Parts: sequence; structure tokens; C-alpha cells
Amino acid sequence: MTSTTDLATDPIAARARVRELMRETVRRSCPTVAHIAGYHAGWLDATGLPRAEPGGKALRPTLALLATRAVGADEGLGVVAGAAVELVHDFSLLHDDVIDEDAERRHRPSAWTVFGKPASILTGDALLAAAVEVIATSAAPGAAESVRLLLSSVHRLVSGEYLDVEFETREVVTPAEYLRMASAKTAALITTAVTLGPTLAQSPPTFVTALEGFGRHLGLAFQITDDVLGIWGDPRLTGKPILGDIKRRKRSFPVVTAMDAGTPDAAWLRRLYRSPAVITDELAEEAAEVIVRTGARERAEAEGRRHVSAAVELLGRLGPGNEAAKKLAELAQTVTNRER
Amino acid sequence: MTSTTDLATDPIAARARVRELMRETVRRSCPTVAHIAGYHAGWLDATGLPRAEPGGKALRPTLALLATRAVGADEGLGVVAGAAVELVHDFSLLHDDVIDEDAERRHRPSAWTVFGKPASILTGDALLAAAVEVIATSAAPGAAESVRLLLSSVHRLVSGEYLDVEFETREVVTPAEYLRMASAKTAALITTAVTLGPTLAQSPPTFVTALEGFGRHLGLAFQITDDVLGIWGDPRLTGKPILGDIKRRKRSFPVVTAMDAGTPDAAWLRRLYRSPAVITDELAEEAAEVIVRTGARERAEAEGRRHVSAAVELLGRLGPGNEAAKKLAELAQTVTNRER
Repeated sequence: MTSTTDLATDPIAARARVRELMRETVRRSCPTVAHIAGYHAGWLDATGLPRAEPGGKALRPTLALLATRAVGADEGLGVVAGAAVELVHDFSLLHDDVIDEDAERRHRPSAWTVFGKPASILTGDALLAAAVEVIATSAAPGAAESVRLLLSSVHRLVSGEYLDVEFETREVVTPAEYLRMASAKTAALITTAVTLGPTLAQSPPTFVTALEGFGRHLGLAFQITDDVLGIWGDPRLTGKPILGDIKRRKRSFPVVTAMDAGTPDAAWLRRLYRSPAVITDELAEEAAEVIVRTGARERAEAEGRRHVSAAVELLGRLGPGNEAAKKLAELAQTVTNRER
Repeated sequence: MTSTTDLATDPIAARARVRELMRETVRRSCPTVAHIAGYHAGWLDATGLPRAEPGGKALRPTLALLATRAVGADEGLGVVAGAAVELVHDFSLLHDDVIDEDAERRHRPSAWTVFGKPASILTGDALLAAAVEVIATSAAPGAAESVRLLLSSVHRLVSGEYLDVEFETREVVTPAEYLRMASAKTAALITTAVTLGPTLAQSPPTFVTALEGFGRHLGLAFQITDDVLGIWGDPRLTGKPILGDIKRRKRSFPVVTAMDAGTPDAAWLRRLYRSPAVITDELAEEAAEVIVRTGARERAEAEGRRHVSAAVELLGRLGPGNEAAKKLAELAQTVTNRER
């Protein structure tokens, strides 16, 4: 578990190590799991042949590697943490795509459209087991506590996804309720991404607490930005259908904020979501404009920036001149400034 | 974790402790999980109110409790092991029922028919996490190794369920292929049920190895008996539709054995499974008679008894005069002599 690469100068090599550990772990499961998980992650095509890697965001592994370095722990523990959180992320995406019947993921047909829902459910199950396995077999000093940390983020993920599913059946979701959902569905795993390596290393509690706050704020900023991109993002960059969130009547942050505005525009939007009719391209475009008019887009963007600032401020507690913390801060800034 | 009940004289109290630990663990997840898991396990009704418990088989917890006692370990560890394997069992049933679209489970509408497929998928995920949690928070000497043992049985379960799903698309499944599937899908978790408590207690490897063999044979006997009941069992006792396995063209052990007989009856059965037409009650009854005529029912029952004998023989290695081992042997005998 000795560090051989320098993450600050060579982040790509470190992420490659995360990916290698994920592959190794997944290969120990059955061949079908290895195939479907590899397709979903992007290193295999639908027939099981290797493909050029897409160079996805790999946000969670990058966060895990940087946070581990920021507390001065061994990079090998960052690799373990990165692989574990990315496996949990992949498990939850596989199941969420089945649940939401999303046909596209990472610019490709989602796994269930290629392999069927049963296979996607089972592969998700295996990836959840594999994620815990990566931690449990790591021989790190804080392995036992880290297993508990990872599992508690799984419970949070599940409860967030429940709320998300439940929101789709409700007429009104308040912005506060939305933020509770997002903090379970998205922020919990991002928080675990930055605390798992330090927990494996048994870093001082003050560091872990600072990173916990950093992760929570960053996770909320990330989800809110995702929601903004889900309406106004460029589909060629996001890989998601244009105005897709509105057409699916998703109660995302800009939508619930607009509905909460108490204006005729807000009432119009509520009526649109309540009506049983299909939301056409034209109606969806009109809805996007209505949301802008209520000030909800601006408010969402401001809320995203506010959470990024709060996240970055907490990094100061990791000590002055901390190069990895500086990189975490840079990464946090890109979360609200991204286009995909 | 001190033992306060005597399992040999009070098995019901010990199983109640398993159930209590399951409830406690599930309650720490979100309320929706606690509700759906409670409905699935049988201690809540569909509206979330408590109901008189059904007194189900609880085979895996009983095995866990007896095996732990048979190696002389603390009963508290048997309770932990029993709760963990039953939570894994419940997780896999929830997902399997979604995958197979089975509408009935434990004599009641299965969870997905009441709460929807998304809720059943998510509750299964939470129960898998909860199962590992029970072990990871147990403070038992062998907790770390036990987490790995439990996870490896999850991988086996998943690979067995894959094969089972895949078998439904195939024309020919050999009896040997079937037994490989059953040993992953059923025997793996039953093996873990009897080795988990001893592993938590760090019992001598000779004991663990003997119980491993016992579990493997018992698991195969159990699955083969289940398959026999899936065709010839009384639906009022099994809670499964009459001749349901044949109507669903399930390639269960009696079926694949009959198809392997190389007689005109075998050819007839293969044609029936190949044809796209619905299998009526009359056809299903005829198929059941055809299977008997090939000798496959008899062979399945003999195979079940053979595995029970092999299982019981291995218990000798736990030492003479072992009361709990004697009870394990009795339980093994009932597995092939049961009606539900």
C-alpha cells in the first residue's frame, strides 16, 4: 500500500489505480457481473470487449484521493476509498436507472436497456457487496469503522432515492424538503468520498469533521448544479435529453423554488406539473422561461455558489500551505462552473 | 452478549432475539425501509401496523443458533449470525420477487405488488447493507473475517440467481449445471448460516470445515426438496400456486432430470417447454405425470436424501454427545420430509 505515484503531479495515474482496483474486485464476482459492471463503468463495450476509456468525471475517486492526501495519509488508502465510493456510486446508478427507466447514462444506452432489468438489479447488488469488500480486505487501521461509515452512506442514499421517487407523486415539494432529499441522495456519498480515506487512516477527528462539512456543502452544490444543467444544460455535453427534467415532471431544485414563489408564474408551473397531458418541447421551453422569470434559476445558482464558498472555507482547518486542500478548493469551484 | 436463554430448551426465545435484532437494525434505516422490510418479514401489515407473527420456518436463524451452540460459542454470536443471514435472505427474496415477478411470498402478496418495484429494490439494498452492519458492529473477535464470509455468500447468491434467470432462456440445462446453480443460489447462504457464528467466535478450523460441508449438502437437499414441492406440493401448505413451476416453465431439478432421460417422455417434455403456448392446468398435470414416469421424481427425492445423509455424517466431527449437533441432524432430516 506504499505510495508510488504523486497525485499532485500525476492525478491520472492515481485514478488509473482506483480503476484497476475496481476491475480486480469486480472480476472476483461472477463473469456476468464483471461484464455488466465493466460496460456500465465504461471500460467494456456491450459485447464484453475492451473499449477506449471515456475519461469520465470520476469526481468521487478524485475527491477521495485528494482528501486522503490533504490529511497526510498514505495514497494507497485514498485508492481504496476511491474504489469503494465509486463502486457504491455505480451500484446506486444501476438501480436508479432501473427504477427511473432512464435509457441513457454517461452518453451510452444505460445497462438495463442492453442487459435487461434483472441483470442490472443483480449487478448493482454485487457492486454493493464489492464496495464493502474493498474496505473489509484493505487491512487499514480504520477498516472496521470505515465499513460502518460506508454502510451508513448506503442507508442515506436509499432514503434519498425513496424521497426522490416519492416526490414524483406529490403536488408540492418545498425547497427545504428538496434539500433534505439531496443531502441524502447526493451529499452523503460525496461526504463519504472525502472522509473515507482519512477514516481508513484514523486521521485526527478535527480533520475528518472539517472534511465532513466540506463534503456536505459540496454535495449540495453538486446536486443543485446538476438540476440547473438538467434544464438549461447542453444535451451534447450533459448526455441527458434536452429539458428532460421538465418533460419528466421532475421536482428539481429550480422547479420547487419556482413553484414556491407565490406568483402567477408559480401557479402556472404547478398546474402544468399537475396536468396529466404530455409536456411537449414547446411547453417545456415555456416552463424553462417561466422558471427563469420567477428568479428560481438565479436563486439556484446563488445557492450553489454559497455552498461552494462554505465548503472551501472549511478546508482552511486542514492547515496552511496544504497543496491537496488547495486542489480540493479548485475542484469545488469547478463543480458550479461545469457544463456537464 | 452474554447468553441468557438456553437454546436447547428454549429455541423460540432465541429466535425472538434474532428477530428483535433484525427489527432494531432495520429501524435504524429510513422509516419506509422499516415498513416494507417489516411487511416482507411478516411482523407488520401493509399499512404498517403490527400483526401476529406467522411463525415462519426461520430455517437460517435456527441453523445459525444451533451451529454456534454446537461449537460451544456464545449464543449472542449465534443471534448476530442468525440476524445477518436472515437479512441477506430477505434482501435476496425482495429482489428475486421483482425479477421473477412472483406475486406471492410467505402466503401473502409479495412486497412489490403492495409497495411497487422501486420500493422493493431499494428496501432490498438497505437490507443488504443492514446485514453487513449487524456483523460489522458486533465487536466479535472474528467480525472482520465474518464480513468477508457474508459478502462472498452474496456474490454466490447473485451468480446463482443469474444462472437461474439465464436457464429460463435455454432449451437444455443438464442436471450437473442445475446443481451448480443451486449450490450458488441456495446452498451458499445455508452454508454461511452454519459457519458465520463459528467464524465470529473464531472456532477451530476443523469445526468450521465440517459445518461448511454440512451446510453445502443441506442446502442442496433443501433446494431439491423445494423443487419437488414446487410441482407436487400442496399449495395450501407451500403458499405457492399449484404446479406453478411447470406453468412458468421453470427448469427445476425434477424437470431437468426428466429432460435428461433420453426417452420419448423426455422428448415430449422438452417440446412442451420449447413451445410458445400457455401451459394449461391439464397440460401441467400431464407434465407432472410424465416427469414421474421418467423416474425423475424418485431420483430427485433420492438425491435429496443422499445429501441429507452426507450432511448428517459430517456432524460427527463436532464431537460425541453434542446436543446441538444432534438437533442440527434432526433439523436436516425434516428438510426432506417437510410439506412446506
